[in-house]
Amino acid sequence: MLVIGVDPGLTRCGYCCVEGGRGSQRALAAGVIRTSKAAPRSVRLAELQQEIVRLFEEYPPDVVAVEQVFFQANVRTAVGVAQAAGVVMAEAANAGAEVSEYSPTEVKMAVCGYGRADKEQVSRMVQTLLALPERLKLADISDAAAVALCCLANNPGASVAGQTARAARAGRAAQTAPADSPSVLSP
Amino acid sequence: MLVIGVDPGLTRCGYCCVEGGRGSQRALAAGVIRTSKAAPRSVRLAELQQEIVRLFEEYPPDVVAVEQVFFQANVRTAVGVAQAAGVVMAEAANAGAEVSEYSPTEVKMAVCGYGRADKEQVSRMVQTLLALPERLKLADISDAAAVALCCLANNPGASVAGQTARAARAGRAAQTAPADSPSVLSP
Repeated sequence: MLVIGVDPGLTRCGYCCVEGGRGSQRALAAGVIRTSKAAPRSVRLAELQQEIVRLFEEYPPDVVAVEQVFFQANVRTAVGVAQAAGVVMAEAANAGAEVSEYSPTEVKMAVCGYGRADKEQVSRMVQTLLALPERLKLADISDAAAVALCCLANNPGASVAGQTARAARAGRAAQTAPADSPSVLSP
Repeated sequence: MLVIGVDPGLTRCGYCCVEGGRGSQRALAAGVIRTSKAAPRSVRLAELQQEIVRLFEEYPPDVVAVEQVFFQANVRTAVGVAQAAGVVMAEAANAGAEVSEYSPTEVKMAVCGYGRADKEQVSRMVQTLLALPERLKLADISDAAAVALCCLANNPGASVAGQTARAARAGRAAQTAPADSPSVLSP
């Protein structure tokens, strides 16, 4: 099962493509989609959309796991985050993927076993769980990876359809992102 | 200048296409895009996206005027509204249109001269300003029309580019939606 975790945002949208099987999981690609603060919001959303469509074409996801939007802190930012999430979710549906949403607490519980873990702890657990040679540099990527791992933890047995898709994808994935290539994980 | 006013929403997304010139304005089309509450949110957002793309192809807008999302009442609903608005705004940019956002208070001030006007007053002023034979049946459409009128009130002189686009569009618009056809305004 290929899960793409997404930490939605207008200025920085983190993503991490994680291939998960029976008790094993490995990252195929990760990065941040940035849009220019100077551009109108609608143009930024369209730019994000283009990059997301490209990503879903390169790594066709079974599931897109998205961090849920919350509105405690800055409402102005939260609106942008929700708008970005809307664009990502629509394109996930267009790509034939399921979408699962997880709250930050659920993600931290799944990855760290503690719902109030800080970004440092999440980043360290992501490195361990994905057996990465080094830490992911940006919190946006680390958070996206954590959402993907949370999704896999909640779906321990990949479905038959997922396994078939995984098998079909295996050749292509190995071709584009060899397991020993850490370069795909550099932001 | 062709302005499409949008009252974003997942369950019901109202729209109204208004052609505005020097002191005159007329509605070309209006309606509500509905998505099924039973479907996953990502599928609903993709459905909304398809309908919006179709609308922007049929009535290429110069400006898409969107009612701003607010988060006082129901946060759960507000997230869906913001996600829907994100999809609409991205497609507006893809269609080459500018996007203007207006708060509910700005819209009511522009249309009724009173920032706390109720839906009834907005609906009556929309009917008057667009010289409609009857009231728009749904608040979603009436609100969308009000946002379009607010946008036109804030841009009283259509730009030269807008006028050229309008002239080019006039033949097609007259063909698809004659001025005396109230049917295009039925939801």
